[in-house]
Amino acid sequence: MTISPNTIFTDVQAIRDTSPLVHNITNYVVMNNTANALLALGASPVMAHAEPEVADMAGIAGALVINIGTLSDPWIAAMFTAAKAAKDKGIPVVLDPVGAGATAYRTDTAKKLMQQFHPAIIRGNGSEIMALENKGAVTKGVDSASAADLALDIARHLNQAYGSVVCITGEIDYIVQDDDVIQIKNGHAMMPKVTGLGCTASALCGAFAAVNPDPGRAAAHAMAVMGVAGEMAGRNAKGPGSFQMHFLDALYQISDTDIGKLFKG
Amino acid sequence: MTISPNTIFTDVQAIRDTSPLVHNITNYVVMNNTANALLALGASPVMAHAEPEVADMAGIAGALVINIGTLSDPWIAAMFTAAKAAKDKGIPVVLDPVGAGATAYRTDTAKKLMQQFHPAIIRGNGSEIMALENKGAVTKGVDSASAADLALDIARHLNQAYGSVVCITGEIDYIVQDDDVIQIKNGHAMMPKVTGLGCTASALCGAFAAVNPDPGRAAAHAMAVMGVAGEMAGRNAKGPGSFQMHFLDALYQISDTDIGKLFKG
Amino acid sequence: MTISPNTIFTDVQAIRDTSPLVHNITNYVVMNNTANALLALGASPVMAHAEPEVADMAGIAGALVINIGTLSDPWIAAMFTAAKAAKDKGIPVVLDPVGAGATAYRTDTAKKLMQQFHPAIIRGNGSEIMALENKGAVTKGVDSASAADLALDIARHLNQAYGSVVCITGEIDYIVQDDDVIQIKNGHAMMPKVTGLGCTASALCGAFAAVNPDPGRAAAHAMAVMGVAGEMAGRNAKGPGSFQMHFLDALYQISDTDIGKLFKG
Repeated sequence: MTISPNTIFTDVQAIRDTSPLVHNITNYVVMNNTANALLALGASPVMAHAEPEVADMAGIAGALVINIGTLSDPWIAAMFTAAKAAKDKGIPVVLDPVGAGATAYRTDTAKKLMQQFHPAIIRGNGSEIMALENKGAVTKGVDSASAADLALDIARHLNQAYGSVVCITGEIDYIVQDDDVIQIKNGHAMMPKVTGLGCTASALCGAFAAVNPDPGRAAAHAMAVMGVAGEMAGRNAKGPGSFQMHFLDALYQISDTDIGKLFKG
Repeated sequence: MTISPNTIFTDVQAIRDTSPLVHNITNYVVMNNTANALLALGASPVMAHAEPEVADMAGIAGALVINIGTLSDPWIAAMFTAAKAAKDKGIPVVLDPVGAGATAYRTDTAKKLMQQFHPAIIRGNGSEIMALENKGAVTKGVDSASAADLALDIARHLNQAYGSVVCITGEIDYIVQDDDVIQIKNGHAMMPKVTGLGCTASALCGAFAAVNPDPGRAAAHAMAVMGVAGEMAGRNAKGPGSFQMHFLDALYQISDTDIGKLFKG
Repeated sequence: MTISPNTIFTDVQAIRDTSPLVHNITNYVVMNNTANALLALGASPVMAHAEPEVADMAGIAGALVINIGTLSDPWIAAMFTAAKAAKDKGIPVVLDPVGAGATAYRTDTAKKLMQQFHPAIIRGNGSEIMALENKGAVTKGVDSASAADLALDIARHLNQAYGSVVCITGEIDYIVQDDDVIQIKNGHAMMPKVTGLGCTASALCGAFAAVNPDPGRAAAHAMAVMGVAGEMAGRNAKGPGSFQMHFLDALYQISDTDIGKLFKG
């Protein structure tokens, strides 16, 4: 699989043209940012988390994004209900296992969602992806591999086991699908200093998955747009406050020329 | 009813002078923005949603704003408790039926709040207002009227049935009270690209209702200030990120001169 | 106790070098801002509020910040569970009694947390701190003292009763520890117009308490950095929207030179 400025921008244009509804069950910290990022790019975000309505909402959406960043029991129940509704209707599900590995509550919830619903895309940083593996496998790997290689090994294994495209984000983003790994080398050093840009990356995966039936390409295009918009934002940012503002402006402005000049696959 | 730059700015000055407490039971996505918009304009926002305290909080407020954007059962219970306390004390209630029509859960909640408490002001976009009507009436109307006309017809009917001023926002804002309709033609094309500006409009209705006993004028003044501040923000915005920042600055700076120059009633 | 630009910056550098994990159980309105402020300064924020995971999370943190701004019963339960876990492990707890005095629900919750866990630092505005005192004492004081003196008297009493450093923020910030009171005279007039800067001040107390074992110095250093960053932000702000952006940038940029030039102890 290869992606190019042309394939990336074709999806951006499709999002702008069709404004797909992206249903997010996400964390309190980032709701505003992710809604704004989806709007800036051209999608239609909706946030809804009550069990009585999530199946209705997921059922009319182009994609469902589940983010476990601020879990609680009622939200977990709603995540399962919504994921079931989405799967039943063939709507792509994106899982962001925020903080998996930090507490058993998060790790267990993320694993159960993954095992039960085989998300189209799982996006996390290296340690979150590693936390989704069973302990045995991780322990075995640690002896012989660097952390990055280990995360990639685990991503490959999760992809084989559940069919999910696994997207590991960091200085280089890796998108793992079948026997293929795409690398995206865009981004900016200030991005980890802004809360919720990882969550925004997952939300954008939802927008791209709503317009592109291939979840590997959708995830890769989303990461490319994140990285290119990040570089555009970084030009004028004086710190993480102005970076966040310029980043939303960049998602709104991003053109085929910007992607053509800046994309580093 | 007519409004003018002079009547608008008189209320702005009253908000700045008296800093009315506006109690918001609103959605997670926009809480930060609406609190900041109220502060920037000069009001005192408070967000509180727990049933054990909402009656106390609504009872000391100048207005209560209920926004159903991210509902759940405990919040619905708190909305009814707070609305009852506000009505008992004669404190104006503003209802924002976010997403009414998208799920039965939202539509039913919004209708029950409307029917039981007869809010001073109901503010929504055209489709949200239309969702508050009983199905029969909507179906009848669809045959013969454009969507805008239909929303206006339904607004008139809701106003007759419940006494609520109904405010339909869009490219043109309509404020429906008794046999009267005020139009406000201010605003900026980038406003729908920023999450929560509709919710902010409802929150500002609360601030104006706290200083003006006529809910029709309060709603119209709030929409005029939204639109004028939006035009001020749009001058320097390069996208929705900078628009949101400039919009808060504009609410803080807005003067009688700005309103005099820009208001288009 | 005295603090100086040198002691302040030593702690800033320690936060940047060690990125302490600060566990926040805070309110919905400010989560995004406080997470961003902690990140901009160099700390690692985590927000988690579910009872099944808060003890795990607090146990791996450098500090626990409890903020009662948007309470509900499940969150109160989680606050007690987390505070117990933190105290058991000797992790400093910061309490922000947002809105204490406005409703009995808030006042009672804040008092119980204070009485049961003796937080390392309690930070609030004058009226919140006064609300933590038993009514008898407050009434007695009102006859003879100005409001500022009364808040200081109550802070001294709370410090004696519970051992907590009490930080009263306002135009002048007072940090009360044992028989000592530090005053910080930095800050900017626009700060009260941005929602959540008080909550941010409490979150920064957590970051400083994670690197400085003396809670009095930690609180004073945090207030100095808040005030200096506020003055840096105020230079270019045109309203509360741009102030918030510049403030995050200032926390990211703040240097020993900035503190040396601007600090007014």
